[in-house]
Amino acid sequence: MLIIGEKLNSAIPSVRELISKRDAAAVQDLALRQAQAGADYLDINTAHGDELLDMEWLVQKVQEVTDVPLCIDSTSALAIQKGLEAVKGDKNKVLINSISLEKNRLEGVLPLVLEYKCPVIGLTVDDNGIPKTAQERIILAERLVEILTKNDYDLTQLYIDPLVLPLAVDHTNAAMFFQCLTNIKQKFNVKTVSGLSNISFNMPQRKIINRYFLAICMAFGMDAAILDPLDGKIMTAVTTTNALLGNDRFSKNFLKAYRKDALVD
Amino acid sequence: MLIIGEKLNSAIPSVRELISKRDAAAVQDLALRQAQAGADYLDINTAHGDELLDMEWLVQKVQEVTDVPLCIDSTSALAIQKGLEAVKGDKNKVLINSISLEKNRLEGVLPLVLEYKCPVIGLTVDDNGIPKTAQERIILAERLVEILTKNDYDLTQLYIDPLVLPLAVDHTNAAMFFQCLTNIKQKFNVKTVSGLSNISFNMPQRKIINRYFLAICMAFGMDAAILDPLDGKIMTAVTTTNALLGNDRFSKNFLKAYRKDALVD
Repeated sequence: MLIIGEKLNSAIPSVRELISKRDAAAVQDLALRQAQAGADYLDINTAHGDELLDMEWLVQKVQEVTDVPLCIDSTSALAIQKGLEAVKGDKNKVLINSISLEKNRLEGVLPLVLEYKCPVIGLTVDDNGIPKTAQERIILAERLVEILTKNDYDLTQLYIDPLVLPLAVDHTNAAMFFQCLTNIKQKFNVKTVSGLSNISFNMPQRKIINRYFLAICMAFGMDAAILDPLDGKIMTAVTTTNALLGNDRFSKNFLKAYRKDALVD
Repeated sequence: MLIIGEKLNSAIPSVRELISKRDAAAVQDLALRQAQAGADYLDINTAHGDELLDMEWLVQKVQEVTDVPLCIDSTSALAIQKGLEAVKGDKNKVLINSISLEKNRLEGVLPLVLEYKCPVIGLTVDDNGIPKTAQERIILAERLVEILTKNDYDLTQLYIDPLVLPLAVDHTNAAMFFQCLTNIKQKFNVKTVSGLSNISFNMPQRKIINRYFLAICMAFGMDAAILDPLDGKIMTAVTTTNALLGNDRFSKNFLKAYRKDALVD
């Protein structure tokens, strides 16, 4: 499973401050530590601040220290474009986060996805909001698949995020999300992705919930997750679950993590 | 998911000593603590000792302090019979652990299962040993189902254990086990069960492996597990996974465990 490191996000107050102070060394340290911990992508979100200028600066600073591909994260097509323009090297390695069926977002982001031939995260939401049922979300996934197919997009680059809602709102929300994962993988030749924090919103012991949620998502075939690679327990969940799912030949990565003292009980 | 408390097992040296010393207070304490921690059954195994006499004594002593049903655990039909005879109250509440397709075991245990109309754990093993593939294990499950059906047994009382083998022996062993769980549930109107310790045999950080193994088994519909209910982290895995799978209305049990300070990170 691919790991999208979530730390370089201006929604985190301490990170927002580093960005606004232009503390290059500190954001570069966060980038490097996430890469070393196993991040396959580094999420870059500057929405809480001077988004366009911050995006350009943050992309440049991160790329000075690591080649790990970036995940350009914004609801604004303009900010995504700014991020793509600032990327040096193969822009088609950037994961665009995200497109959806909301009219403005679709019209703004789709041309960028097609122009740069990037992998993209597709949210199952339209201008009516996030549908309540798994069935309706799969219909939105299908519409995204149709639109991208019509535009000759390689569907194996599409990461559908069926948008998990909190357990605290409805105790069937996780179960419904697992059903979305299974059905989307069965119906379409696409990948799936999720963040981990929504599920445990407004609940105690959130990290425990997030870890088992991740393990079960992986069991149902999830391809990528947006998470904190500096959290030893969540990374232990990833390593252990990969071993259990048969994805770790001779349990090599599990044993390597053990020898590095990286498995946290 | 049903929890079968595993502590009253003579394979554990300290418990073997309590049994051989006839320390009633200590085994009763172990029984009570498991029941209070949420055990739905208490496993009773006296194979390492004077099996028949120990079985009779242990069943009597445990039943003096708790009404939690017993899981009479032996490879010997005679010991199972001794256990059943010692049980006071509804003998059809006893979970027999276990039957298999090994000729002696089948011939010895089947009559007891039918006479007392007990739920029973059925192992997918015959006199050729444990089959290597999921497909072959499902064939053995099918043979057990056929034999029990022919004898008018209520299949919803049959708990198939597809017998997980260590990851350290083959890194696909857990994945194969998950496949067995899914296929058995799809094909037959039976339940499924597993122990947790085989999977991590000869690996470091065994408890981490056991916990995520359990969570994934539950996600694939496992109905019961033999585990240590006094282990706070494994019970946290059960509580959290039940909440995630939508089996905990309003997350009531999860929140209750939190308030009792029983969720262990």
